[in-house]
Amino acid sequence: MDQKDVKIVNQDEPVVPRTNSEKEGISNRLKRIEGQVRGLQKMVEEDRYCVDVLVQISAVQAALDKVGYQMLERHAKMCVTNAVKEGNGDEYMDELMKVIKQYSK
Amino acid sequence: MDQKDVKIVNQDEPVVPRTNSEKEGISNRLKRIEGQVRGLQKMVEEDRYCVDVLVQISAVQAALDKVGYQMLERHAKMCVTNAVKEGNGDEYMDELMKVIKQYSK
Amino acid sequence: MDQKDVKIVNQDEPVVPRTNSEKEGISNRLKRIEGQVRGLQKMVEEDRYCVDVLVQISAVQAALDKVGYQMLERHAKMCVTNAVKEGNGDEYMDELMKVIKQYSK
Amino acid sequence: MDQKDVKIVNQDEPVVPRTNSEKEGISNRLKRIEGQVRGLQKMVEEDRYCVDVLVQISAVQAALDKVGYQMLERHAKMCVTNAVKEGNGDEYMDELMKVIKQYSK
Repeated sequence: MDQKDVKIVNQDEPVVPRTNSEKEGISNRLKRIEGQVRGLQKMVEEDRYCVDVLVQISAVQAALDKVGYQMLERHAKMCVTNAVKEGNGDEYMDELMKVIKQYSK
Repeated sequence: MDQKDVKIVNQDEPVVPRTNSEKEGISNRLKRIEGQVRGLQKMVEEDRYCVDVLVQISAVQAALDKVGYQMLERHAKMCVTNAVKEGNGDEYMDELMKVIKQYSK
Repeated sequence: MDQKDVKIVNQDEPVVPRTNSEKEGISNRLKRIEGQVRGLQKMVEEDRYCVDVLVQISAVQAALDKVGYQMLERHAKMCVTNAVKEGNGDEYMDELMKVIKQYSK
Repeated sequence: MDQKDVKIVNQDEPVVPRTNSEKEGISNRLKRIEGQVRGLQKMVEEDRYCVDVLVQISAVQAALDKVGYQMLERHAKMCVTNAVKEGNGDEYMDELMKVIKQYSK
């Protein structure tokens, strides 16, 4: 997925700013994912059986899906909803649908 | 995906050992992915716009898909094929189909 | 996906009614898909090679994905946007995210 | 998914022929799916709420996934395994991986 194929809105920050607790929640999840990716490297170095590695790759993907979905949901319910209420929601809704289309590929 | 739901074969290492060049290739990809996950953390700290982060999450997922597929293909063409030729392929084929089923969820 | 797990809004018809041309467009796509499914039955009766049938199943899935996405997009841009503008958008947005979560499974 | 991008083996019928009971099982599933697609047309004609239609589209997709997976599994465990045992399995295994790659798109 390329940014230029998805991004429509000229926006650098969330429309509704993330709270510190939200940021911390996402950071913690991402740190755990970083640890899982390092764990994958170790498995390959230790020559672990392919299916064991594949099961672990699938766990990392599930964790990434979860962060992605959480962020998407927050974006829709906060940023997009806000933009619609303020009368400039069309491009936000367009962009949301493009993100969703790309994720379903 | 839980290991106990997928793994059938009692195997700790690849049936056909990974060459050093194969291990290095996978390690390099995983290191790049680790870097991308750290990049995601930075984006969240810098309060970047949700869609920018989502596009980047989707790039990490595509990179993980690629490593996973590469490993799956190598496992099928080397380990599973080998096991079938040596007459004990049934449980390897069963296991391969379970991996594929779980990945398609 | 079960209706009871997804549907939140107490609504029997689209918030913004489908035009005749919209209905006709969807109906035509669905008729083509029905024809494709009948084609699959014929392939199985004629004992066609597994991979040929699998390629055709995947074509039907792509066609269904397209109708689904088209309907989802129209629902988001018309019905959900409308509901948000009229001040009762929260449950529509919740429901939209549930649909999206279920589709990504 | 295009046939020319996936099919490698020059084969018109399953390597291991489908039994009558297998054919009947697949046909029955496909007939039910055909009925579900007709049900979708009726929902659109009756102007049913978008989310109700989307839930039903997702049910059809799940049913198609099931037939596809069933056929893929049977192909792998019967046709591909057989070909490997008879010493010409490489192109069958190549083709299987292409099918899987395309399905995961």
